[in-house]
Amino acid sequence: LTIAVSGIFRLRVASESKRSFHRVASMALSRFEYVKQFEQEDKLLPNAWIVVRIDGKGFHRFCEVHKFAKPNDLDALQLMNMAGMSVMQEFNEVAIGYGQSDEYSFVFRREANVYQRRRDKLVSYVASLFTSAYMFHWNRIFERRSLTIRYPPSFDARAVLYPTDENLRDYLSWRQADVHVNNLYNTTFWSLVASGLSNSEAERQLQGTLASDKNEILFSKFGINYNNEPIMYRKGTILLRKPVRTVDGVKKLIVPIFEDLINDEFWVRHPEILDKKVTTAKSDDAVLALSGLEAQPIVSYQLEVLQRKKAGIAEATARSNLSGK
Amino acid sequence: LTIAVSGIFRLRVASESKRSFHRVASMALSRFEYVKQFEQEDKLLPNAWIVVRIDGKGFHRFCEVHKFAKPNDLDALQLMNMAGMSVMQEFNEVAIGYGQSDEYSFVFRREANVYQRRRDKLVSYVASLFTSAYMFHWNRIFERRSLTIRYPPSFDARAVLYPTDENLRDYLSWRQADVHVNNLYNTTFWSLVASGLSNSEAERQLQGTLASDKNEILFSKFGINYNNEPIMYRKGTILLRKPVRTVDGVKKLIVPIFEDLINDEFWVRHPEILDKKVTTAKSDDAVLALSGLEAQPIVSYQLEVLQRKKAGIAEATARSNLSGK
Amino acid sequence: LTIAVSGIFRLRVASESKRSFHRVASMALSRFEYVKQFEQEDKLLPNAWIVVRIDGKGFHRFCEVHKFAKPNDLDALQLMNMAGMSVMQEFNEVAIGYGQSDEYSFVFRREANVYQRRRDKLVSYVASLFTSAYMFHWNRIFERRSLTIRYPPSFDARAVLYPTDENLRDYLSWRQADVHVNNLYNTTFWSLVASGLSNSEAERQLQGTLASDKNEILFSKFGINYNNEPIMYRKGTILLRKPVRTVDGVKKLIVPIFEDLINDEFWVRHPEILDKKVTTAKSDDAVLALSGLEAQPIVSYQLEVLQRKKAGIAEATARSNLSGK
Amino acid sequence: LTIAVSGIFRLRVASESKRSFHRVASMALSRFEYVKQFEQEDKLLPNAWIVVRIDGKGFHRFCEVHKFAKPNDLDALQLMNMAGMSVMQEFNEVAIGYGQSDEYSFVFRREANVYQRRRDKLVSYVASLFTSAYMFHWNRIFERRSLTIRYPPSFDARAVLYPTDENLRDYLSWRQADVHVNNLYNTTFWSLVASGLSNSEAERQLQGTLASDKNEILFSKFGINYNNEPIMYRKGTILLRKPVRTVDGVKKLIVPIFEDLINDEFWVRHPEILDKKVTTAKSDDAVLALSGLEAQPIVSYQLEVLQRKKAGIAEATARSNLSGK
Repeated sequence: LTIAVSGIFRLRVASESKRSFHRVASMALSRFEYVKQFEQEDKLLPNAWIVVRIDGKGFHRFCEVHKFAKPNDLDALQLMNMAGMSVMQEFNEVAIGYGQSDEYSFVFRREANVYQRRRDKLVSYVASLFTSAYMFHWNRIFERRSLTIRYPPSFDARAVLYPTDENLRDYLSWRQADVHVNNLYNTTFWSLVASGLSNSEAERQLQGTLASDKNEILFSKFGINYNNEPIMYRKGTILLRKPVRTVDGVKKLIVPIFEDLINDEFWVRHPEILDKKVTTAKSDDAVLALSGLEAQPIVSYQLEVLQRKKAGIAEATARSNLSGK
Repeated sequence: LTIAVSGIFRLRVASESKRSFHRVASMALSRFEYVKQFEQEDKLLPNAWIVVRIDGKGFHRFCEVHKFAKPNDLDALQLMNMAGMSVMQEFNEVAIGYGQSDEYSFVFRREANVYQRRRDKLVSYVASLFTSAYMFHWNRIFERRSLTIRYPPSFDARAVLYPTDENLRDYLSWRQADVHVNNLYNTTFWSLVASGLSNSEAERQLQGTLASDKNEILFSKFGINYNNEPIMYRKGTILLRKPVRTVDGVKKLIVPIFEDLINDEFWVRHPEILDKKVTTAKSDDAVLALSGLEAQPIVSYQLEVLQRKKAGIAEATARSNLSGK
Repeated sequence: LTIAVSGIFRLRVASESKRSFHRVASMALSRFEYVKQFEQEDKLLPNAWIVVRIDGKGFHRFCEVHKFAKPNDLDALQLMNMAGMSVMQEFNEVAIGYGQSDEYSFVFRREANVYQRRRDKLVSYVASLFTSAYMFHWNRIFERRSLTIRYPPSFDARAVLYPTDENLRDYLSWRQADVHVNNLYNTTFWSLVASGLSNSEAERQLQGTLASDKNEILFSKFGINYNNEPIMYRKGTILLRKPVRTVDGVKKLIVPIFEDLINDEFWVRHPEILDKKVTTAKSDDAVLALSGLEAQPIVSYQLEVLQRKKAGIAEATARSNLSGK
Repeated sequence: LTIAVSGIFRLRVASESKRSFHRVASMALSRFEYVKQFEQEDKLLPNAWIVVRIDGKGFHRFCEVHKFAKPNDLDALQLMNMAGMSVMQEFNEVAIGYGQSDEYSFVFRREANVYQRRRDKLVSYVASLFTSAYMFHWNRIFERRSLTIRYPPSFDARAVLYPTDENLRDYLSWRQADVHVNNLYNTTFWSLVASGLSNSEAERQLQGTLASDKNEILFSKFGINYNNEPIMYRKGTILLRKPVRTVDGVKKLIVPIFEDLINDEFWVRHPEILDKKVTTAKSDDAVLALSGLEAQPIVSYQLEVLQRKKAGIAEATARSNLSGK
């Protein structure tokens, strides 16, 4: 192994003139270029909904190592939302984002033309951007708890196509029904463990129970009414672009929504998701108030960025006024 | 928009018994589960070489914002190598890694069975892991320069199949010929700019020039012998797993290699890349010495991790000795 | 080359016992079976419309060799219809067939599950069946003209997915607009040639002409009102399954329809194409009369088959009555 | 339903000028053309072996209806060979064909560029051509037996990629081991049935038997030495292009070869299959003699075609001599 080995072309053309040497170099480039043909551009079917779903890799261990609260760690979920927001800021063709547990789904509009719908590019870029934002915002979320990141987390992604609006709604309903079933189980399981049972004892006790049984255990043993648990834990987080009334006027922000998306009312309330012609309503009652939203990290972050931009512009204007004198 | 909306299933089953409510919940899950069938598992052809290539997204701007040196920033390249090393540590089925500029190629062995060769998973996970490691090691590389990351960087990835060893070699040769052509251009371009030309003047001067002309400009105008430029800039970085003699004996490390991989000698010197039966030679002269390698961040990092593990084991042993008394 | 070479396994196991020989044989089978894993089952996206379009290979030459009339040979088109009918008889999941010139499109319903929607199987089988039926019915159509088939004709096929009903309608409209444009051109071209121009002279005269110009040429020079040309030539043939009143009662037959499918009325008139819940209307006025349809070869063929079956059953019944005595 | 409906565009533009009508027509064409984008060109990986395998659809019934002999009908197999030959005549990029039972495999060379390696086109066209040739040559093979074709037979096809020569050889070995195992079973089964057993009795008797047991049954009960059964039945038919010495000199013909292709000797004897650089040897001992081959229908057919061409040329020459006077 020679770290100090000399140049690729130099050795073989030692006795030749410089010109012929360089001809070799560019010939090499073109001689090998044929390998580009082996790239197969898998393009996603036009006019179908594209769902890109991100999944945490080995997050069981990641949660352990970073001592995330069980069954839900609010900060960890908010960090997922920060990453989800970043993806939606990058891709304005995402109609709706939906996160729960260590997964996040991004729904690209039928007419989306991002990377000409090339599968590899889309899937890898969303995974990369989500990961990157997850790490970037880590400190903002966790510095209060002095929690530093111990090793690089990662996520995989997949793209799935849905031809009809009904299929798309059913996809999102599937993910929301999934968080319901899992969170009810986990809430009961960890309550039992907190009450002194070992993990395997808790598992045995829950084996074969119906949802109603779990509800009963929660209520009778621990005085917990499951329906009063935080809605974010029970339903996951929906991300939508909405006009919000801020101190600087109405701004389009990405806001977290905590609703049942299985029923029809949701889709009537948010017609802009499915209908490309309906832009977000601007009528007075459609504009959201800030109160309540401000507590959400993704909202406070966006407001902060707006303030910084405003300050930057003000400063820039001030400077140009000075220099303009 | 009601942040405090009540449960998904509660509303619609208010008047029903608890049991029937929960039946609805799990029925919902199974009713929607059909959407899983829309996932199309694109599996990569067995027994073909898989190349996953990572590419920086918008790195032109990223370099500007972070004031990376032009045309090559040694630290930035070493950070890419750190990320490349992390990917190879995760996937022991990667036979060789190759990085240059803002791209990195990982060659998975013909027989690799990672994620059952599912394209989406492989491509997205490699992109995510690379990104994650890039951010994770940022401070290690850049704290000397007090350089903080300003916004989340991202990378896309693609998978390409090569049926024959010859095709695979040509792929790697193509990337190495590419760095040669680009780096010669960039070195000359930025020398011209450093000497006072504007970007567009430098561009104009280089238009239509042969490689030999650029060499001539470098030598006559700036006294630069291109072949004396750092080999990492001229040839990129090859990553291989090699036995290295450390203070704690011979250890298998991922080491950076700076060689011409276009010629046959490279493949004779490193037979383990192409031949699955040849494991890395363990004969004395095949074991690398540390000297020279230590200066490479990816090597010093791995040694540090080994030291930490050793210390951890020593501490654990000490403790168990105490408790055993 | 030894035609009379001895058995595969015999030679190599000459001195072994018979039992061990045969163990070798079945071991061989299992040893090689791994190659099945290389088959990649590309499944067509569920719930999307599947169009399989057949195209004649080298039909220019095929038409020349078999002296088909230009620009339209009624018998040749009817033979295409016979082949189209055969495909629809085999696949009851085809909602509509559409043929023009040497091509035929088959629209498989969204919910079609033929071969589990495997692309290779579907595409190849439709191509094979169409080809086979084309040859099988050749004599029925051409024996009047004593035309024998000179060499094997062939067709290729492709599968295309359409996510929405609108996309599907636009596909069919595209094919019908295509036959309009081509047939107007061809009718004018061959009229000019029939009037004494050479092919290249006719081509030159039509270069750059609008459709209206061609109409004008047809009318002024040849007294042809293009809109009085046979509608099959101008619009192609639509195949639908419809209830028809026959001498033996109402029967479901595949009937040729000659209509404009670009306008909305067509889709209102034939709601069963797009709507899976609407079965073909059975109301009195929806049942077609035979008159007019009988002249169509695909209809007379189906009636003949029905008669043969009826006769077969009658004969079988008669026989069993005799034997029952 | 109006068979005599008037033109597509005429109705809707009745009151408009002719010119505007036709503008509508060509606008229609371009308005709908976007649907072409939905075609996804799946291109087969370059430089990999492509195997296209044809399989009979429902051939159990087809054999019954046409009373093919069991377990092997020589004529039916020769007809398969005729169809296989036709495919190889059309595609000179097929290196080897292999047929057994109702299936046929065609191996396209690594460098084959047929239809730019588009999967749909290749798979459907091979299936169509095979089907077409099967029907075209039916009379040549079966007229001796006055056997007419009762309904259209059909075949499906699939494409499979093999990256290495070893994988390709294993694929062909797999098919040849398959015919061995099946044919031994079938030969024994039908012997038992011929001796008076019912199908289910024969099946029961063979359940769980080893190959050696079947051999024993054949020999002891029926005096059949399996290895003396016709080699075509035991090994299938290999098709290769070979120089053959005919009365008109050495001609390149597609010849049937009956050999064990599992062992290495086969590949040494026919080096042109795997090696693109080796063209079929033209050395004297490599040229095949006609004797023995003439009995094969695919050879006698090719000789006949050569004779016809020669006669055609002779006639044409004679004519041009006459007219030249």
